[in-house]
Amino acid sequence: MKINVVRSVLEAGEASAAENRRRLDAAGVVAINVLSAPGSGKTALLESTIPALGSDIRCAVLVGDLQTTRDAERLGPLVAQVTQINTEGGCHLSPSQIAQAISGLDLEGISFLFIENVGNMVCPAVFDLGEHLRAVLLSTPEGDDKVAKYPPLFQTADAILITKVDLIGVLDYDAARVREDLSRINTAAPLIELSSKTGQGMDEWLGWLRAQRPGGSGKEKSPPTAKP
Amino acid sequence: MKINVVRSVLEAGEASAAENRRRLDAAGVVAINVLSAPGSGKTALLESTIPALGSDIRCAVLVGDLQTTRDAERLGPLVAQVTQINTEGGCHLSPSQIAQAISGLDLEGISFLFIENVGNMVCPAVFDLGEHLRAVLLSTPEGDDKVAKYPPLFQTADAILITKVDLIGVLDYDAARVREDLSRINTAAPLIELSSKTGQGMDEWLGWLRAQRPGGSGKEKSPPTAKP
Repeated sequence: MKINVVRSVLEAGEASAAENRRRLDAAGVVAINVLSAPGSGKTALLESTIPALGSDIRCAVLVGDLQTTRDAERLGPLVAQVTQINTEGGCHLSPSQIAQAISGLDLEGISFLFIENVGNMVCPAVFDLGEHLRAVLLSTPEGDDKVAKYPPLFQTADAILITKVDLIGVLDYDAARVREDLSRINTAAPLIELSSKTGQGMDEWLGWLRAQRPGGSGKEKSPPTAKP
Repeated sequence: MKINVVRSVLEAGEASAAENRRRLDAAGVVAINVLSAPGSGKTALLESTIPALGSDIRCAVLVGDLQTTRDAERLGPLVAQVTQINTEGGCHLSPSQIAQAISGLDLEGISFLFIENVGNMVCPAVFDLGEHLRAVLLSTPEGDDKVAKYPPLFQTADAILITKVDLIGVLDYDAARVREDLSRINTAAPLIELSSKTGQGMDEWLGWLRAQRPGGSGKEKSPPTAKP
């Protein structure tokens, strides 16, 4: 298993999210920025998702962490290509890191590029990386108050995934409260409740994902607004 | 219940953490910066801790969130004074916000000032607010890989609390892996495994806390290093 590693480096100029998107569009790749707090299950979701998409849908993954290649090691056996981006203290991925990582990928035949961002509900929300879509995760043990407390993250989501729903029975988690908070800030994104562990809700997520491929039934959308 | 609210404002100059510490020292207040990812149980810990300290130990709380006064509403009935700081998009509390909040408090007779930071494992780690001690939380559902992935947060901790240990039976969580990762970056801070829900481990945490009061048996420590 070959794991490319990109480390945060000072660059002459910041690469542009729009240029990243143009390169991905030219290769027919749909890029999905996957965002959440630390430990919401981003890597576990990709571990379940990628094999379930089937062998005709090839995926690549860029995975961001301050340190370690642990997530790339987990995902490496499952995907065509994986690149670990170590931000070395940085609180979000940047368009330059994505540009550098894309340059090291062979995009030929790749349908989806998943970009697993640094676990952080604040900073990654305001950086457009050049992705086409955003999937935002909230895990049930984080609590039902997080949509109201971190609205920018949920406002920019194209799909909102409530993860670890298998734990609801042992938590004080009020699903209605989350829906009510979301109804005030984002009613366009589908709300999908799932468990990567039990498989509950995975069909709905996979269906949404398949519809986002070129020629799928997913709606075209504008790129997210960057606030640099 | 009166809840003061401080909102993020542009200021002429950044207040200094050292000046905050001087003001707290003059009033005999021990300030504890409480840090973790979103949903690790910072507010739940304070809800359990403050009444358990007993009526002879008076506490005040500053609580940071991007939006809402939900945490201040939860803590208000339990503490002498509570101030909600809304960062309105900011990813960490700043010394200026603390200076402003302290100015609105009556510090007379307060033993502990708990500063509940914005839920974020990255940015708050590098800002000295003028606190005396740092308590860093990691909840078991976040996973046993977080110490290695977010080392700066754990390196600066004076106490490391593994929260929600009541959930261990339903999770794939390896406590030994966390201890091993911590052994490489911070062996000075006590590691306390607890559950605010069941009370497990709370005595150890309360004992540590009581020892930090002036005249307690806690060791004197240098202020954390700020990397502005």
